[in-house]
Amino acid sequence: MISSRIDSFRSVAKNFKVVFLDSYGVLKNHKGLIDGVAETISFLRGEGIVFRVLTNDASRSQEQQVEVFDRLGLKDLDVEEVITSGMLAKQFLSHKIKDGKIAYLGTENSADYILQSGLKHIAVRDIDLENIEDISAFVFLDDEGFDWNYDIDTTVNFLRRKTVPVIVANSDKYYPVNKNDVSVATGGIAKLCESMLSKKFIHFGKPDTQMFNYAYEHINRDKQQYDKDDILMVGDTLSTDILGGNKFGLKTMLVLSGNTRSDNAELWINSSGIIPDYICDSILK
Amino acid sequence: MISSRIDSFRSVAKNFKVVFLDSYGVLKNHKGLIDGVAETISFLRGEGIVFRVLTNDASRSQEQQVEVFDRLGLKDLDVEEVITSGMLAKQFLSHKIKDGKIAYLGTENSADYILQSGLKHIAVRDIDLENIEDISAFVFLDDEGFDWNYDIDTTVNFLRRKTVPVIVANSDKYYPVNKNDVSVATGGIAKLCESMLSKKFIHFGKPDTQMFNYAYEHINRDKQQYDKDDILMVGDTLSTDILGGNKFGLKTMLVLSGNTRSDNAELWINSSGIIPDYICDSILK
Amino acid sequence: MISSRIDSFRSVAKNFKVVFLDSYGVLKNHKGLIDGVAETISFLRGEGIVFRVLTNDASRSQEQQVEVFDRLGLKDLDVEEVITSGMLAKQFLSHKIKDGKIAYLGTENSADYILQSGLKHIAVRDIDLENIEDISAFVFLDDEGFDWNYDIDTTVNFLRRKTVPVIVANSDKYYPVNKNDVSVATGGIAKLCESMLSKKFIHFGKPDTQMFNYAYEHINRDKQQYDKDDILMVGDTLSTDILGGNKFGLKTMLVLSGNTRSDNAELWINSSGIIPDYICDSILK
Amino acid sequence: MISSRIDSFRSVAKNFKVVFLDSYGVLKNHKGLIDGVAETISFLRGEGIVFRVLTNDASRSQEQQVEVFDRLGLKDLDVEEVITSGMLAKQFLSHKIKDGKIAYLGTENSADYILQSGLKHIAVRDIDLENIEDISAFVFLDDEGFDWNYDIDTTVNFLRRKTVPVIVANSDKYYPVNKNDVSVATGGIAKLCESMLSKKFIHFGKPDTQMFNYAYEHINRDKQQYDKDDILMVGDTLSTDILGGNKFGLKTMLVLSGNTRSDNAELWINSSGIIPDYICDSILK
Repeated sequence: MISSRIDSFRSVAKNFKVVFLDSYGVLKNHKGLIDGVAETISFLRGEGIVFRVLTNDASRSQEQQVEVFDRLGLKDLDVEEVITSGMLAKQFLSHKIKDGKIAYLGTENSADYILQSGLKHIAVRDIDLENIEDISAFVFLDDEGFDWNYDIDTTVNFLRRKTVPVIVANSDKYYPVNKNDVSVATGGIAKLCESMLSKKFIHFGKPDTQMFNYAYEHINRDKQQYDKDDILMVGDTLSTDILGGNKFGLKTMLVLSGNTRSDNAELWINSSGIIPDYICDSILK
Repeated sequence: MISSRIDSFRSVAKNFKVVFLDSYGVLKNHKGLIDGVAETISFLRGEGIVFRVLTNDASRSQEQQVEVFDRLGLKDLDVEEVITSGMLAKQFLSHKIKDGKIAYLGTENSADYILQSGLKHIAVRDIDLENIEDISAFVFLDDEGFDWNYDIDTTVNFLRRKTVPVIVANSDKYYPVNKNDVSVATGGIAKLCESMLSKKFIHFGKPDTQMFNYAYEHINRDKQQYDKDDILMVGDTLSTDILGGNKFGLKTMLVLSGNTRSDNAELWINSSGIIPDYICDSILK
Repeated sequence: MISSRIDSFRSVAKNFKVVFLDSYGVLKNHKGLIDGVAETISFLRGEGIVFRVLTNDASRSQEQQVEVFDRLGLKDLDVEEVITSGMLAKQFLSHKIKDGKIAYLGTENSADYILQSGLKHIAVRDIDLENIEDISAFVFLDDEGFDWNYDIDTTVNFLRRKTVPVIVANSDKYYPVNKNDVSVATGGIAKLCESMLSKKFIHFGKPDTQMFNYAYEHINRDKQQYDKDDILMVGDTLSTDILGGNKFGLKTMLVLSGNTRSDNAELWINSSGIIPDYICDSILK
Repeated sequence: MISSRIDSFRSVAKNFKVVFLDSYGVLKNHKGLIDGVAETISFLRGEGIVFRVLTNDASRSQEQQVEVFDRLGLKDLDVEEVITSGMLAKQFLSHKIKDGKIAYLGTENSADYILQSGLKHIAVRDIDLENIEDISAFVFLDDEGFDWNYDIDTTVNFLRRKTVPVIVANSDKYYPVNKNDVSVATGGIAKLCESMLSKKFIHFGKPDTQMFNYAYEHINRDKQQYDKDDILMVGDTLSTDILGGNKFGLKTMLVLSGNTRSDNAELWINSSGIIPDYICDSILK
């Protein structure tokens, strides 16, 4: 299985009934919507190809994701067409946590959407370490909405005092802020806390196959009409998009419009052993 | 969520429509079938509780697993009631590897069942390192069927020369051989090779949620009749059975008839942060 | 080699010519100097036993360490009797970095003492990412003196843009702030950055044997008068004090006045495989 | 500190009083002695430059190493000029293990030289797991002299039953056997066992600074005549030779006659952050 280097995303996509698309690096970048993406989405609709956007961004609900795309110029996205790792976190909490309060590190906004299971939630800054009996779970939601100088310590000390399920709604360690630079993301902070506590938390998001399975079940929810062989996963990151897509049994395409640059794609594939079926510059043509 | 210490597996199981059972440490141990397990299986059938055995043993097909249980005295197991990590490996290969030969480390027998996709397979000992163009994937199948002194070197050197998808059909690092002792398993050998190559292979089996999802889809294959809230996962190992069950959103029960002993269960739960919903001595009553 | 559980530090110390002492958890704790420590230091002096304090605290110079001990009530410590991981960092920089500026994360104060090699230094907050040609090394010095919300991002982005030697003057991931709680230390932040960059930095401090060797050379600087068999290392932490002391070939004593509690000492020894020669409640009698 | 790409090893070596040389990839390779190495050694002697060979090969004593070099055509090496990681293991055992038997995985020959401390030793194949009270330490010595199919299991089961100091005399995971291929080395087997036991053993050899310190003390054993600034470390591997040399504070030179090839040297330096002071094709001119 050597990756096929291809010129046209569209010519390959035509052979599939479903396309899963990563968001950052495929549809948009630090400057906004990637030029031509709106046309490609129209092309998919025109061809009757079902698509889903799979994103590790847990800070916004489906509705908010659609609003952002709308503001960037991708107008007609449906709420159901966006799937976030936060939805998996939400599903986990609703199945496993039946009482108590859920403590969280992140913004009120992200808490509202993920923790809407009827349970109360409490921001880390409001935790009183002497009074934690009623906290029944902890969630790493977002890299904003707290003071790094204090709240990471409180998080660690809470978790030293009480053993509860800890979930990480977005496992990405960083996200890009411009052409060169990145910023620490929730997954990085969670990693720091794991390392201090010598524990492993429960992580959601690509490359975990649960994310792909959620999308797979979603497109088959009415009737079982799509098989894995019908689906193409498209992403810019070997270690999340391609690894996860491969493991779930999908055909995968690496695009070079984001994290992976043309001049090191082959090297990274060889050194990681993560092999996309196709490599293409972008989804633009 | 503090684990409930309970006396009777049956009294809890009655509240679920489905029970997933680990094999080693729950149904059998190094001496054979655990006394009373046959009665518990009859109880489940009598109550109309659906069950599946989820095992990381990829060396035997479903049919062979059933034969072994039959020989040990558990007579009426159905082939469909056993789900192995090897079945996931098989599914992956059939979706992703469409041509070439599949090289494997393991027994002919395990190769026959996992690699029956129409593709040819080749044992590591038969690989000619100067002639590897037609090998398109590599599978770690089993800890028997090869000579450790030679075939691990060949495996590593093949993978240094050619980048192909590498899958590990059983991620367990060791398996028990008697009350005290263990033996290196496929997952251990794969780990050694990963460490020599600085690569990560594709691992199947618990705690990966893909295993649970496979079982979940299986019980819902005719109609969508069971929800995650209907299912109890029972296992003896926190890091595979309970971690995976929790992450997939199932209720989980740790039994103390295998890897985890009564006197260190609480300690291990606290130090790992992996929390079963229930703890019970065994599934016997 | 089973650890000997002993009642009296002094009775064992008498058999050695030199004692190396960890600072936090042995000499002092969050409340101040541990009661009776001053008497034990007097005992050592009275017996003619040479001692050194070996600490991973890189934020203060030897002089400042002595001042702190003085303020806490341990009056007669000599500057030469304290050895910090910062001194190793300083030594490294003076041998390896001959020109350019040294960027640092930490306080001005820690920078002043470690970076006094004639080279200029620059705090992370003052780095202009568009103008980094003259920065020739980076040092993680201290967990204070910067804004977590900004300066960690700058650190990572600087290190994405330029490959320079990166050193960590204190590898501890956290330090205790009271009986129950801890605070993230420099080593934790460095770990976060390593994980984001997929690189390994150069770490100084226990358990690295370089720290022990520095102390060993120091006591033998005039003439080679002490052998490894003459030295007892005393610490409260298996993974730093005892591991490092053992590896360097010293006899080691675990005291239970700090990180390791009496009720889990044996368990931690068995699970880590790090075995002190002696275990004692404290150095008080 | 950007690496200087230089044409002539000799022109740089002339500026140092001491040169430390890695063995495999610098002096010899799979075909034997590298052409011209004998002349370079003569050059060093002629210039009065002291040198030491630092090797992670723990399977042979200094005398045996010299014999091998002699057989390969490097005639005049002195026993004192070769320093092996096995010598560190030997030193550790003599300081820390005062009674009992030392169990080992490796050849009789390697056991004879490392374990000559007056203590008895016992090969893994001779361990009776029911009778292990008198075994006081375990050493991973060599990748030969045992049956992989049995003795690794015995090693793991012994270490599950008894907590003793475990040392790894050679941390290398593999060694080259020809231009393309490698073979599993002791460090790889130790890593497998560590992973099965969830323990960390005590590793000797580069990049650990203890190896460099041993050599440093050796050249200064009569009088303190050489400073770190007087020494150049030359090796073919970034992660052992260069990392260790840098950390110890030596100037370092990467040669391209072994593990690191000319076309990926820069890439590996950037991705690892391990920066040699000099890069040179070989030590030949």
